[in-house]
Amino acid sequence: MNNNIEAWEGFESGIWKREINVRSFIKHNYTPYDGDSSFLESPTQDTLDLWEQVMDLTKKEREAGGVLDMDTKIISTITSHGPGYLDKDKEKIVGFQTDKPFKRALMPYGGIRMAEKACKDNGYELDPEVKEFFTTHRKTHNAGVFDAYTPEMRACRSSHIITGLPDAYGRGRIIGDYRRVALYGVDMLIEDKTAQKITTRSAMYSEVIRDREELSEQIRALEDLKKMAMSYGYDISGPAKNTAEAIQWLYFGYLAAVKEQNGAAMSLGRTSTFLDIYAERDLKNGTFTEKQIQEMVDHFIMKLRLIKFARTPEYNALFSGDPQWVTESIGGVAIDGRHLVTKMSYRYLHTLENLGPAPEPNLTVLWSTRLPDNFKRFCAKLSIETSSIQYENDDMMRFTHGDDYAIACCVSSMRVGLEMQFFGARANLAKCLLYAINGGVDEISGKQIAPEYRPITSEYLDYDEVMAKYDEMMKWLAGVYVNTLNIIHYMHDKYCYEKIQMALHDKKVTRWFATGIAGLSVVADSLSAIKYAKVKTIRNEAGIVVDYEVEGDFPKYGNDDDRVDNIAYDIVHRFMEHVRKNHTYRNSIPTTSILTITSNVVYGKNTGSTPDGRKKGEPFAPGANPMHRRDTHGAVASLSTVSKLPFKDAQDGISNTFSIIPGALGKDDQIFAGDIEIDLDCSNGACSTPTLFEGLDNDEE
Amino acid sequence: MNNNIEAWEGFESGIWKREINVRSFIKHNYTPYDGDSSFLESPTQDTLDLWEQVMDLTKKEREAGGVLDMDTKIISTITSHGPGYLDKDKEKIVGFQTDKPFKRALMPYGGIRMAEKACKDNGYELDPEVKEFFTTHRKTHNAGVFDAYTPEMRACRSSHIITGLPDAYGRGRIIGDYRRVALYGVDMLIEDKTAQKITTRSAMYSEVIRDREELSEQIRALEDLKKMAMSYGYDISGPAKNTAEAIQWLYFGYLAAVKEQNGAAMSLGRTSTFLDIYAERDLKNGTFTEKQIQEMVDHFIMKLRLIKFARTPEYNALFSGDPQWVTESIGGVAIDGRHLVTKMSYRYLHTLENLGPAPEPNLTVLWSTRLPDNFKRFCAKLSIETSSIQYENDDMMRFTHGDDYAIACCVSSMRVGLEMQFFGARANLAKCLLYAINGGVDEISGKQIAPEYRPITSEYLDYDEVMAKYDEMMKWLAGVYVNTLNIIHYMHDKYCYEKIQMALHDKKVTRWFATGIAGLSVVADSLSAIKYAKVKTIRNEAGIVVDYEVEGDFPKYGNDDDRVDNIAYDIVHRFMEHVRKNHTYRNSIPTTSILTITSNVVYGKNTGSTPDGRKKGEPFAPGANPMHRRDTHGAVASLSTVSKLPFKDAQDGISNTFSIIPGALGKDDQIFAGDIEIDLDCSNGACSTPTLFEGLDNDEE
Repeated sequence: MNNNIEAWEGFESGIWKREINVRSFIKHNYTPYDGDSSFLESPTQDTLDLWEQVMDLTKKEREAGGVLDMDTKIISTITSHGPGYLDKDKEKIVGFQTDKPFKRALMPYGGIRMAEKACKDNGYELDPEVKEFFTTHRKTHNAGVFDAYTPEMRACRSSHIITGLPDAYGRGRIIGDYRRVALYGVDMLIEDKTAQKITTRSAMYSEVIRDREELSEQIRALEDLKKMAMSYGYDISGPAKNTAEAIQWLYFGYLAAVKEQNGAAMSLGRTSTFLDIYAERDLKNGTFTEKQIQEMVDHFIMKLRLIKFARTPEYNALFSGDPQWVTESIGGVAIDGRHLVTKMSYRYLHTLENLGPAPEPNLTVLWSTRLPDNFKRFCAKLSIETSSIQYENDDMMRFTHGDDYAIACCVSSMRVGLEMQFFGARANLAKCLLYAINGGVDEISGKQIAPEYRPITSEYLDYDEVMAKYDEMMKWLAGVYVNTLNIIHYMHDKYCYEKIQMALHDKKVTRWFATGIAGLSVVADSLSAIKYAKVKTIRNEAGIVVDYEVEGDFPKYGNDDDRVDNIAYDIVHRFMEHVRKNHTYRNSIPTTSILTITSNVVYGKNTGSTPDGRKKGEPFAPGANPMHRRDTHGAVASLSTVSKLPFKDAQDGISNTFSIIPGALGKDDQIFAGDIEIDLDCSNGACSTPTLFEGLDNDEE
Repeated sequence: MNNNIEAWEGFESGIWKREINVRSFIKHNYTPYDGDSSFLESPTQDTLDLWEQVMDLTKKEREAGGVLDMDTKIISTITSHGPGYLDKDKEKIVGFQTDKPFKRALMPYGGIRMAEKACKDNGYELDPEVKEFFTTHRKTHNAGVFDAYTPEMRACRSSHIITGLPDAYGRGRIIGDYRRVALYGVDMLIEDKTAQKITTRSAMYSEVIRDREELSEQIRALEDLKKMAMSYGYDISGPAKNTAEAIQWLYFGYLAAVKEQNGAAMSLGRTSTFLDIYAERDLKNGTFTEKQIQEMVDHFIMKLRLIKFARTPEYNALFSGDPQWVTESIGGVAIDGRHLVTKMSYRYLHTLENLGPAPEPNLTVLWSTRLPDNFKRFCAKLSIETSSIQYENDDMMRFTHGDDYAIACCVSSMRVGLEMQFFGARANLAKCLLYAINGGVDEISGKQIAPEYRPITSEYLDYDEVMAKYDEMMKWLAGVYVNTLNIIHYMHDKYCYEKIQMALHDKKVTRWFATGIAGLSVVADSLSAIKYAKVKTIRNEAGIVVDYEVEGDFPKYGNDDDRVDNIAYDIVHRFMEHVRKNHTYRNSIPTTSILTITSNVVYGKNTGSTPDGRKKGEPFAPGANPMHRRDTHGAVASLSTVSKLPFKDAQDGISNTFSIIPGALGKDDQIFAGDIEIDLDCSNGACSTPTLFEGLDNDEE
C-alpha cells in the first residue's frame, strides 16, 4: 500500500498504513475528550429547514397510510437509481436509497412474494414482468430455503417451536466497516480485495470456488459504490481529505449496503470516534468550525433517520414503527485503558437535541464504569429528556470482542470488519418442555411434531423423569434448529449475498452462528415447581397434557434464589451444548441469545399451559426476565438472578427489560451516573428486531 | 409403486414394477428380431407432405442466412411457449422447442453475451431488458466461471494449451432417461423423486442442502413437463398406453430437455428397443399396423431432425452445419447374451430411406460381432447408401457399461439414467511438450504461461531429460486443467442446472469427470525422434526453442512398432495418472478421451513446431490417429497401433478417423458384414462436438 497519501497528512502512522486496519488508525490518532457538552453547537438554519421538510414528508407519509412512494419495477442495486435530494443546496451530506426521499426501493432477492406483498399491502402493484422473472428465472433466498426444508422443519416452523427464522427476509446482522471507505478510498479497498483473491487456496474445492466468486462480487460491488458516489458528484476512489468527505464517504458505504440489502438489522457500526479524528484535524487547521461540523453530523444523522424499506404492515403493527436498526455504537473503553469518548460522541448524541428524539439511528452507548463522568452525566440527561439512548455493557463485551466491536441490531456484538453473524431467531424452550412431557405432540394442535419419544404417563410430574426427557427433547430441537439455519444461511449466501457489506470486511471473517432462546423463565419456574412443589397433569380426551395444577409453593426465578437460578443456568448451558453438537454452516461458531423483548407475547400466545402455573396463551417474560410479578424480592435480587446466566453460553446477548424509578436509586437526577452496573448486556428494552418477524412465520410457505 | 396398471397389461413383471428401472422392463419384455428388412413400410402421404414442408422451410432458412426466426425476448423454459405445429392434422408426433418450427429459442442461462451474439450475428437484437436482467440480477454460468478463474487458468485458455472449455455454452453430455416418461408416466416419477428427497442425509451439510434443492428443482421440472404436454393436449401424468403414446411421451421428455438446455450435445439415449415392446404388443393386439407404426417413427425422427439452437455463425462455419448431437444408440448385445436388435432398430434406420439421409439424429449402431447377420447387412447397405450411420464398439463398452448405456455426443458412453458426464474438452499435450522444453514459456507468444521450470538449454535434446521435464509439465497441466473444470462444473450446476435431464436420472448418479487429450501422435513421434534420432533445437533471439531439426530416422506412431507405440501408451497413462491426483468436483470419476476430429486443425494452428518435424501451425492428426502419411505399413498396422492405447485410461473414448476402400476388404458389397472389428471406439469420423467450440475460447472473457 502507498504510505504517502496527502489525505493522511498529520495522522500518526501505524499498521493501518500497511494494511486495512481502522482500529489501528483510531488507536494512533484519536483524542479522548473528558470535557463537558458546553462546546456543542445548535442547529443551523439549513438543518432546521431540512428537518422541517422531513417532518412534512413524514406527515404526508403517515397520511398516505405509511408509505409515500414505492418502486414496483426498478430493482434496487447500488447503482439502480440516480441521485436523490431533499434540497440539494442545503444538504451537507447527500444520498438516498432511491432517487428521492421517502421512496421505498424494490428488493426481491430475499423473496418475491414478500416483495409483492409489501407492494400490495401499501397499495402498489409489483410489475408483472419482475414477478415472472423472479419466479421463473431468478431464484430468491426464500424459494431456495423452501426447496431444501424437510417436512420436520416446516412442522417446527408452523407449530412455532422454532420461530422468526430469516427465511423470507434478509438476515441482516452484518456490519460493513464503512469507515474503510473514508480512510482508504475505494481504490485501495479494491486493490486489497484483488490481492486477497490471489491468496485463495489453489485446489478448486467448492468452498474455494465460492470464496473466489464472492471476492469477485465484492470487487464489483466496490466498483458500483464508486459509480453511485460519482452520480452524486463525488469521486471516492481516494481517501477522504476532511471531515465533510469522511462523513460523506462513510455514508456512501452504508448507503450502498441499504440499497443492496433489506436486512433485519442494517447497523452502522462504531463510527463517531473514527470521524472525530478528522474533526480534530480540521478544527486545528481551521478547515471547519464546530458549527460546520455539527451541521454535517446533523445532516448525516438525518439521512440515517430516513433509511426506509418496503415492508409489510405486519412489520409496522408489530413494532409500531418502521424499524431499521441503524445501530451506532458510541463510547466504550480501549484495551489500553483509555476511554473512547470523543467530542464526536457528544455530537452524535447531540442530534437528539438538534433534531429532536428519534428511535433511529439506534444510538447505543457502550457503557463502562470508566467512561468520563461528564459523558455519563450527558447521557443520563439525554436519556431522561429523549428516552432515545440504548446502553450496553462494554466492560463485559470488551473481554471477548476487544475495543473495536459494534452492536448489530440491539445486542449482537461483533468486531467491525472482522466478524459477522448468521442471524438465527429463536427456539421456544417452554414449548420444548411441553413436547418432552407429551412425547413430541404439540399441546395446541395435537399434531406429532417432534419424534415419538415416550410421553410422561404419571399424574404427578417427577423432576428426574421430566429433566431426562427434556434434555433429550432439547437435543432434538437443537438439531432441527441448527440444520434449519444451515439451510437458511446456505441459501442466503447463494441468492442474497451481502456483496458490499462483505467487501468491507477482511478476507478471513469469523462467522457467528447465532441461535436464540425464548421462554427461559417459564422453563426455570416450571422445573422448579416440579422439583420443589407438586405438579399435577390435566389431560384432554386424547391423553395429551393440556394443563397443570401446582400444589404448594416453589422458588421462582428472579429472586436471587440459587435453587431455581441454577436450573436456569443449567438449561442455557445444556441447550447450548446440544447446539454445539451439530455441524454449523461455513465453520461458523455457534452462540445463543436470550433476547425476545416484545415477541414474548406472541410466543406465549402459541404455547399451551406450563407447569409453572402460566396458562395457555399467556405471555412469556421478555428475554431473560423473570415472569411478571414473580420477582418479589426487589430490584437487586431480580437483577442478580439474571446476572447468573452463563454469558459464555449466550454470547450473542442476554436482555433484561428493566424499568426503574429514579427514587429506587436514591438520587433523583443521576440515574446512570452512579455505580449501578448490571453484569450483562442490558438493552434499553425499547425493542428487539426479532420481534418484527414473529408473526410472519408462515407467510411464504 | 402401484403394480396394477392398465397401461402395463400384457407386460411381463420384473423389478421395473417395484422401482424405476427401464432396463429391467426391456430385459423382461423385448423381442429380439433376426429377420430381414422386408417388413418395413414406405412413408405415408402425410409423412411425405410434412417432409416436403420441412424441406421448404429448410430452403427458406438457408436463404435467410441460416436462421428463419428467433426469440429475442421470451426466455426458453419447459413451459415458456405454447404448442407449435407443422400441420397439426398430419403430425402423429407433435412438439417444437418454441411455438413454431424453425424458430430458435433464447437461452441465456449459460451466458448472456453468447446469447446476445447469437441474436446479433443472425440479424436479431436481444431485448435490452433481458440483457440487463441477466447482467445485473440473474447471473449466468459464464459470468460465474470468470469470477472464479485464476489468472493462470485464463492464460492457459488464451494460449490454447487448454481449449474448447464449456464455460460459455452448455456442457451437454447428459442423457435423461426419456423412456421413463413413457413407461411410468410423470406422476410416478414425481412420487419417486419425492421419496428420494426424504432419504437425503439429515445433517444439513452444504452438499446435502444442494441435493435437496436439486431434487426440488427436478420435481418442479417434472410438473412443468406435464404442463407442457398438456398444452399439446396430452395428459402424460400416467404411463403411455400404446406405441403412439410411448413415442409421444418419450419425445415430450426429450423436448423438455432441449427447451431447457442448449447443451454441447443433447443426446437421446437408447430408445428403439424400448419402444419396440409397445409396437410388438400393439401389432399383436391389432391396435396399430406396421404402416402406422413406421409413420409414427418417421414423424418422431422428423421432429428430432428439427431440433435447433440459436448459435453463432462460428459454430456453423466450424462444423459446416447446425449440429445438436441428437445421438440415438441402436442395437448392441445384452449381458444375457441375446442381441438387442428389434424391428424398431430397423424402423429407426429405415427413416434414412423414408425421409432421406440426414446427420441428425445421430443414429449410432452399437456394433458387435454377435449382431444378427441380417441386421449387419441392412446397416451396411444403408451406410453405403446414406453415409449417415455411426458405429461404436459394443463388445468393448458392454464390459464397463453393461447393456443399457448410450452414447452422448459421438463417443461418450454412459448408463442411461444412472450415469452422467461432466464434459471437459481437451488439453493440448503437444504444446505441453514444448512448454517442458521452454520452461513454461509459450513458443508462439513468448509469454510465461506455465510455472518457471528450468528450460532445456542443450542444443540437442536428451530423451531422459525431456521426459522428466515433460512429466512435470503434464503434472502441472493436469492440475490447472482439472481445477478449471472444477470451477466450470460448480458454476454450471449453480447457474445452469439441467433440471429435467437430472429428473430423469436415479438419485444416486455416477458422474464422469471427462478430460481430453489432443496431439497424442505428435507427442509420440516427437519423443520417438528424440529417443531414436537426433533432434537439434533452433532458438529465437530470446533463447526460446521455436523449431527443431531431426537428424536421422525414427519409428513413427501408426506402424505397429512397439518402440513408439509404447511411448503413446505411456503418455496417455501418465497424463491420466496426473489427472487422478487432483480433487474432482462432486466425487466425479476422472476419465479422458482422445477424440479431436476436426479441431486438430485448430490445435495445430495454435502450436509451434514440434520435435517430430511438424512445422508451426501445421495440423495435428485427428483423435488418436497417426500423423498423416506417417503410417506407411498399411491399414492393419495403423489400426493395431491405435488399438494398443489403454482404454482403462481413456474410458471416455478413443477416436480413429479411418477411411477404407471396399477393395481393401476383399469384398465389394459387404463392408461391415464380415469379421473386421477395430478394438476401440471408432466413430464414423464425420464430426466431433468439441470441434464446434474451439474457435470460441476467448469470446466471453
